[in-house]
Parts: sequence; structure tokens; C-alpha cells
Amino acid sequence: MSITSSLTSATLCRSLVSPKALACSNEFQSNHLSSPKKNATWNLTRKITPVQGIRCQAMQVETKEPFTAGKKFQLSDVIEGQQFDREMLSAIFDVAREMEKIEKSSSQSEILKGYLMATLFYEPSTRTRLSFESAMKRLGGEVLTTENAREFSSAAKGETLEDTIRTVEGYSDIIVMRHFESGAAKRAAATANIPVINAGDGPGEHPTQALLDVYTIQSEIGKLDGISVALVGDLANGRTVRSLAYLLAKFKDVKIYFVSPEIVKMKDDIKDYLTSNGVEWEESSDLMEVASKCDVVYQTRIQRERFGERLDLYEAARGKYIVDKALLGVMQKDAVIMHPLPRLDEITADVDADPRAAYFRQAKNGLFIRMALLKLLLVGW
Amino acid sequence: MSITSSLTSATLCRSLVSPKALACSNEFQSNHLSSPKKNATWNLTRKITPVQGIRCQAMQVETKEPFTAGKKFQLSDVIEGQQFDREMLSAIFDVAREMEKIEKSSSQSEILKGYLMATLFYEPSTRTRLSFESAMKRLGGEVLTTENAREFSSAAKGETLEDTIRTVEGYSDIIVMRHFESGAAKRAAATANIPVINAGDGPGEHPTQALLDVYTIQSEIGKLDGISVALVGDLANGRTVRSLAYLLAKFKDVKIYFVSPEIVKMKDDIKDYLTSNGVEWEESSDLMEVASKCDVVYQTRIQRERFGERLDLYEAARGKYIVDKALLGVMQKDAVIMHPLPRLDEITADVDADPRAAYFRQAKNGLFIRMALLKLLLVGW
Amino acid sequence: MSITSSLTSATLCRSLVSPKALACSNEFQSNHLSSPKKNATWNLTRKITPVQGIRCQAMQVETKEPFTAGKKFQLSDVIEGQQFDREMLSAIFDVAREMEKIEKSSSQSEILKGYLMATLFYEPSTRTRLSFESAMKRLGGEVLTTENAREFSSAAKGETLEDTIRTVEGYSDIIVMRHFESGAAKRAAATANIPVINAGDGPGEHPTQALLDVYTIQSEIGKLDGISVALVGDLANGRTVRSLAYLLAKFKDVKIYFVSPEIVKMKDDIKDYLTSNGVEWEESSDLMEVASKCDVVYQTRIQRERFGERLDLYEAARGKYIVDKALLGVMQKDAVIMHPLPRLDEITADVDADPRAAYFRQAKNGLFIRMALLKLLLVGW
Repeated sequence: MSITSSLTSATLCRSLVSPKALACSNEFQSNHLSSPKKNATWNLTRKITPVQGIRCQAMQVETKEPFTAGKKFQLSDVIEGQQFDREMLSAIFDVAREMEKIEKSSSQSEILKGYLMATLFYEPSTRTRLSFESAMKRLGGEVLTTENAREFSSAAKGETLEDTIRTVEGYSDIIVMRHFESGAAKRAAATANIPVINAGDGPGEHPTQALLDVYTIQSEIGKLDGISVALVGDLANGRTVRSLAYLLAKFKDVKIYFVSPEIVKMKDDIKDYLTSNGVEWEESSDLMEVASKCDVVYQTRIQRERFGERLDLYEAARGKYIVDKALLGVMQKDAVIMHPLPRLDEITADVDADPRAAYFRQAKNGLFIRMALLKLLLVGW
Repeated sequence: MSITSSLTSATLCRSLVSPKALACSNEFQSNHLSSPKKNATWNLTRKITPVQGIRCQAMQVETKEPFTAGKKFQLSDVIEGQQFDREMLSAIFDVAREMEKIEKSSSQSEILKGYLMATLFYEPSTRTRLSFESAMKRLGGEVLTTENAREFSSAAKGETLEDTIRTVEGYSDIIVMRHFESGAAKRAAATANIPVINAGDGPGEHPTQALLDVYTIQSEIGKLDGISVALVGDLANGRTVRSLAYLLAKFKDVKIYFVSPEIVKMKDDIKDYLTSNGVEWEESSDLMEVASKCDVVYQTRIQRERFGERLDLYEAARGKYIVDKALLGVMQKDAVIMHPLPRLDEITADVDADPRAAYFRQAKNGLFIRMALLKLLLVGW
Repeated sequence: MSITSSLTSATLCRSLVSPKALACSNEFQSNHLSSPKKNATWNLTRKITPVQGIRCQAMQVETKEPFTAGKKFQLSDVIEGQQFDREMLSAIFDVAREMEKIEKSSSQSEILKGYLMATLFYEPSTRTRLSFESAMKRLGGEVLTTENAREFSSAAKGETLEDTIRTVEGYSDIIVMRHFESGAAKRAAATANIPVINAGDGPGEHPTQALLDVYTIQSEIGKLDGISVALVGDLANGRTVRSLAYLLAKFKDVKIYFVSPEIVKMKDDIKDYLTSNGVEWEESSDLMEVASKCDVVYQTRIQRERFGERLDLYEAARGKYIVDKALLGVMQKDAVIMHPLPRLDEITADVDADPRAAYFRQAKNGLFIRMALLKLLLVGW
């Protein structure tokens, strides 16, 4: 590939930098083209979508100018954790750190002034929604909110998700979608001519949670290669720990410990994935022993709603592994405790005051990651 | 009327241009005057309110300066499609076209900066609400949202609509109201000292939908006089097609075809209205034949909720007239297919890619019409 | 206390002026300190919290510079009416009057530009929420709204209020909270590192309503000392009249009349409080006689929901004391009628047009009071 062609490619990336402008030029084509470019973007038949999800990749642009080093890809949508490789994560985290500075400064950012985000939530998730809306507004952008998207969807009058997306994209510049069906975000992204962010689709993906978890480990421990992480609690149903395991597999010399009640053990697909990617893992029933040698203890909530009427099993499971003062006593000085929140009593309240309790900082990091993604999707680097 | 008096009239119009300023001067009169000016505006006993709804009409201002040509009226509220004559429609459409340019430009408009719109929805309608809120924010304005207005209304504690309006007008500059009762918008407008837009009141009016439909025909076909339009589907219950028929009657040489299952035929009041206004119309059961000679095929959804337990009748009705590839085959090259959305399967998905499928452009036009109305009501021409 | 130390104190006050900046400096301490400063602020065991609620009091700053006269305190939270003394009320009312001017001016205020308010409503209250959100937006600030805060609270998954607050404070600069439990606002304020405003907590406090009531009396009557006020209607359950009685006790020569059906009489705790604070009060069953000699007739709604299945008792109580044209006839020329709204028929509609009907102006005053509080909490004097 010659320098000329790489410049062309770069130019194409540049034009993609502003999806809003793209949407405008698409205005007159809408309904006129049977296969818009983005229909080809997401391959719906494969579980783990590789880099096609990214319109312009680093390797496609061969020029070596330093100013684009590590930042040569352009995000078009955020659909699943698997779309990111470690270079992309590193570049996104650089932007997230800039966002921390912006959020802490007293002057109002206008990076996203004039941009409009639609939060299309087919099931309520106040925590996630507020985090995205705060991210947008901290950057000077505006928000259209709907928490009852089901009402103008198939559930109510039989409209397809695709039709809803075609309508909403006419009113906004980016769609943040929460849906009850796995794969819904991918379908929305395939339809939309504006960027789509998956804010959780059923038992499927919740990629911004996965990103903020990895970002928190990077921020707190200072590295991602060579770390050891204990995943604790409900490993069978928690999509958070599953996504985290996937992403950690992209780094070197990572060791993962699974500590969970027998009834909610980590499933074999993740274990097989880790093994085939050269990640060392082991199961343990001794949280104290594991915690004493880990950099990260990632605790999760036992989800009562998964136990149906077997409350006896739920009660047995939830009390088994608790993060408390005693556990703090054996943990390393620089280790941290994480939790995706909300918590019940799987971390006792007296742990909160310890510097190693990182879970509220982790929640705050969600803001920075979402600010970074909104910036990258709407105005580029 | 002398030039002097016409200037006075123009000055009065000018002062009405900013209802916010008007509200301020009313501040000290509130509760002190038994009949505020707007109480006289809407005549509640007449079905089709004529031009009193418009504070300053073209004929009242006799000066002929070109800069006001066709734009001499001032909107105070938007309550029903019938309040607009063809000159007003033309003037509003001019503004809507300006709005298209503003929406497509990359810089943020500040036309409505500092203005606050309250969306007072007594029943949810996410599509309509998002469209209004997007319109307001695209022009730099701000929004107070309520989707559960019933909660602080008569349904909850017995407050009258009038009291609610008197409270909400203290917090905002314009009220966009959706209500479950026919005539509610007119009552709200009679009470409020700020502009009210009817975003649908029960089986009554939904004037912004009617305006966007006519605007879409104008944009797509390039004219409104001399066109032929097929209204298809549920003509008995669809307030959209009824309003559209009313508005089309204001133009010359319009021909309307009604194509519907027997059980949901267009009612006699509309037919009589068309006849008495010199509009040619006919009923047909042959959609293919009608479609082959129309400029516009306006398809609508058969509303299941109108059939109660007679699902057999619903199923029979909904399958009768479908817009599909075969229909496209007989339609004229420059004709268009419209639909108020949401659709089920009365237009098949393979029609979407045809340039004549105008329904998503139609939905987008709702944004431009609402931007235009908000601008006209809040800051004038 | 030396001038030097008082300057230090003033400096400390200054740094507290911007809680957002404070939040930033706390960023790195979060989860690291077991007792943040604000934990000591609210004494949860005492019913009437005195001035500890105010971080810097007038007496702590001994410097006498005129520019701070009467304004030397800094608000950190607004939790209950009792936290305000008459000097504070006077200073807040001065700011509210400035806010009236800002709201009436045509140009957009940017006093709170860049600030983000979270409305965390555990039970819906559209009227109160819209009023706060309007206040924030009139000053150029932004809003994150949640009306279903219960969904990410204990009711849903078992999260504590404290954990919710720690998360939400990461996304916003100030929290306006409505809760169903008495004392919830105090708990939230004790946790949060950003200001909290109580927008009503169950049967407990609703301090901004109390402030706007007193502000309305001041605005309408021109004074608070020496006035006579009739509290009418449901005095047993109405937290509005209870709070108002508390606040009126801070002024001189106030006379209060209680006029209520026997079944909803004012409770003894308030009567005892008034007596011990030297406020003259009496009960009467003759509304006409009382109204003829009062400056303020404060009518309230008989709350049907308090009567359970005894609708007969409700019907008897609600019809007993009505403010109507006849009552207007005996009232003094400069007296006013107030009502916290919503009203049913305890004030007849034909009263609205009388200049003495102050209840819609009272509702509007809620906007000015909330603008003033938001300004004071976020940017100080």
C-alpha cells in the first residue's frame, strides 16, 4: 500500500470523524439505498466479532507519523467488549484520563456542544443512564431521554427495533441503547447511520462496564500485564466478570482465580477461552488464601432473581464469601477491592473507609470512560 | 384603516412576538384580572375555530411592505389543523425549510437560547415527545419533561387542568401538551399566558402531524394544488387521515381516493366536508388501480385496539391492503408512499429501499415543522 | 478569636463556597477517610438541629466588613426549615428577589453554567421536580432526572441510600432528593460530599415549601413581624402548615389562628412549641370571623388518602371550611389567600380573579426560592 493510498485511507477516517456530517450527506440517500455501508459492519452470525467492527484500523493506515501513533482507528459503534484490542484500550484510556481533567476543571467543556444523545432504554437502569447523561452533559452535549422505549416498540404496537432506530436517528446524533434482548445493540448499529453504544443488552454484553473495569485496574494497580485477579461471587450469571475475563485475556501473564459458591461457578466457555489464550486460571474455595496474593479482589453480588423459589440456596450462596475487615487484614498493601455495584452485604460497610476499597472510584471511572467514548464517536481524536 | 393605525397594529404584533416578555408584564396582573386576553382567543363552543385563534392576521395589517409579505400573522397557540389557511401553511413551510438548513449545519443554533419548553404529557408518546424535545434543543432551547402529568392532575389529587397550567406556565415559556381528552389543548390555551402546542388530545386533533404530512407532500411532490392522494387503511379511526383530508381541502384540484376495509371506512362528516369544499373524492377497493394514478399513497396501520375481542375482524382487515413490491411496480416514477408510523406489516420491509418510500423522511419532517412552530411561537418571524 | 484566625475562618468559608471544587479535592480521599467532615454536620439524634447545620456562621467570622453584612453564613445543605434563623431567611430572600429579576429578564443567566443537578426522586412529585429543574435551567445549569430512584435503591436490589448517594455524587454537583422516609435527606447529606436539598422526605420536612411560604407572606404583606395568620383545613396531616408555624415562631408579635375540622386539628407539639416561643395562638371554628381580622388566610386541602375507608368522615371534613366569594367579602383589603396547591374545591374558582388570591404567585415564588438556594449552595453569595 503506497503512501498515497494510506493518505486516502486517512482522509476517509477523517470524514468519519464527524458522524453527524456523515448523517447529513446520507440524508438524501436514506430509503434510497438498500444496503447502507453499516449493514456490512456487524456480522450477526459470529459470537465474537473481530476487527471489522472498526471502520479504520491501525494496520490499514501504514503511515507512521507519530501524532497518530496508537490512535489510528476510528470508532463507529460500541457493541461488545471483544471489539477492542489492547492498543485500542490503551488509546481509549488516554482519552479517559483527559476526561478526568476536564471533569475536575471548573470551566464547562464545550467539546460536544451542539450534539444530541438519545438514551433509548427498553428497560430502566437509572445508574447506567445517569452515568451516560452526566458524561454527555459534562462535555457540553445535550440529551433526549426515554426510559420507556418499550412503549413505542414492538411490545406496544408491533414496531420493529429497526424502524424505531430509523426514527430516533432523525432526532439525535448518537444513540445509547439498553435492551432486554441479547444482540439488540448489534441490530441497532447495523441499521443506524449514527453511532450506537450498547448500554447492556439482556444477558449479552455491557461493554462500557467491561472497559471501566479494566480502566480501573490500570488506574489503581498501574498495569495490566502480570497482574493476578480474584473473581468472587456469582460467576455463572454475572456478565461483568465474564466480560472482564475476556478482556484480561488480551494482556500478558495474567492469573485469574475463581472463587464462588458451587452453584454459581464460572462456566466452561470462559475457562476454555482463557486456556486457549494462554491465561493461567484456577478455582479455589479459600478466599482468604487467594486474597492474600492477588492485586485485585473483584467481588460481585449473588443475584437473588436467579434462584427463583429456592431462597434456601440463595441464602447459602450469598453468605459464603464476604469481603470484610478480616480479609483486608490479609490483603496486600497495594491491592484493591472492586465491585460493579450495587452491593448488598457481600462487602461489609466497614471496608469502605479503607484506601483499598476502590468500588466508588470504579463507579466514577464509568463516567470518564463514557465521556471518552462519546467524544471519540462524535468528534474523533 | 389608515397607515398609522396599521403601524400600530404591526407594533402590537411585534410586542406579541415575545410571549415571554408578555408573560413578564402579565406577572403583576396574574390572579388580578378576571378575563386575561387569551380567554377570548378560543371559542370553545365551535368545532372549527376560525381566525380568531390568530392574534394578528394578514388582513388586519394593511401595510404592503414586502418583508412581511405572507408572514403577517402571529401564532399564539397551535391547537388544531383548521386554524391554518394556505397562506399560513406556506409561510410556516418557508420557516421549516430554513430549519432543515439549521439542523444540517454543524454549528449549534442559539435561536431559542434561554427559552424553556415544558412537555406536559398526560399519556406517554415517546415518538412525539422526542421529536418536540429534539426540535427545542436543536434551536438551543431547554426542556422540562413530564411523562406522567396525570400524577399531578385530576386523576391523582383532583386538580383541574386549568390549575396545572397556571402552575406550569410559571416554570416555562411554552407548553407542549398531550392529553387523553378531546378539547383539552383548547382549554389549556384559554388559560395559559404562554403559548400552548397541542401534541395530540385524545381522539381529537394532532395538528403538528397534519402539518408535517402536508409539508412532506409539498417537499416530495413539489406542489399541493392538483395532486391526487390515496388514503389507505383504517380511515374510520385514524385521526391522521382525517386531519390530512381537512387540510388538503384548502388546495385546488385535489383528488382523494379512500381505500379501506369495509369495517373502517371513512366517515360521512369528512366526505360531506370535502364535497362542500369542492374536493373530488371516491371510494375504491382496488388499491393497485388507485396507486397507479396517484401522487401519494398514504398508508395507515389498522389499529388492533379498536377491535376489542373481535380479533377475527382485525385479522381480516389488516391483511387486505398491503403496500409491497408489486404495488411499487404499478406506481408512478415520481409518486411517494407515506405512513405516519409506527407500521406493522401494512408496508413490507422490502419497500423501504425504494426512493419512493418517504415515511422516514416524513418522520424527520416532523422535526423541522416543530422547530418552525417553536421558533414562530417564541420569537416570531 | 484574633483577626488572623477570623481571616482563616473566612478563607475556609471561601473554599466551601464552591462545593464542586471541594468535591475535586476530596476525590483522592474518597473511601480513604472514615469520617468525612460532613458526617459531623447533622446530628441524627436530635429533632431540631441547630446551627451546626451551617458550616460557617456569622458569629464565627468576627470581621465586620460591610460587604458581608448579614450574609456571612454558608449553606452546605438544605434539610429542614429549622436550620434557618431570621437573619438567614432575610439574606436568602434578598437573593430570591435578585432571582425574580433574572427570571424576568430576556437574557439567559449563566450563573450556574457548567453545574449539574441530579433530581433523585424516590417518589414522583412532578410539581416540585419541575420547579427545581426550571430553577436550575433558568440559571444556565443542567439537570439529570430520575423519577424512579427506587429502582436503583434498596426497594429493588437492596442497595443502601448511602451507596446510591456515593454513586450519584460522582455524576453531579448537587442532589435534590425526594424520599418516602422521614430523615432520609439528613442521611444523604451526612454521606454526600456535595450539597443535598431535601425536596420532601415522607411525613418529615419539605423545607423549600416552608421557605417559599414565608417569602410569599413577606412579598405580599411586606412584613413578617406583627402579622396574623389563619391556618385552615387539614392541620393534623399537612406538613406545610406545621413547617410554616415553626418558621413564623421566629418572628415577633405573630398571631396564629387554627381553623380546622375537629378530626384534623393541629397537634399539641406545635401548639406547645408556639407557646414556649411566645407566639400567641388560638383555635376557632368561625372562619368568617377569623378571616375578617387576618393578614393571611392559608387554606389547605383535606387529604382524602388519610381517611382510609371512612369516606363519610372525609366528606364531612372537606366541606366544612371553604374559601369563597362570601369570605372575600369580609377579608381586609390588603390580606391575601394562600394555598400550597394542588387544590380541589376548598377555594372556589371564582376567587381566583381577586387580587388577594395569591396562590399562583406563591407557586411561582417557589421557583425564585429554589433558584436562590441553588445559587447559594453552588456558587455562594
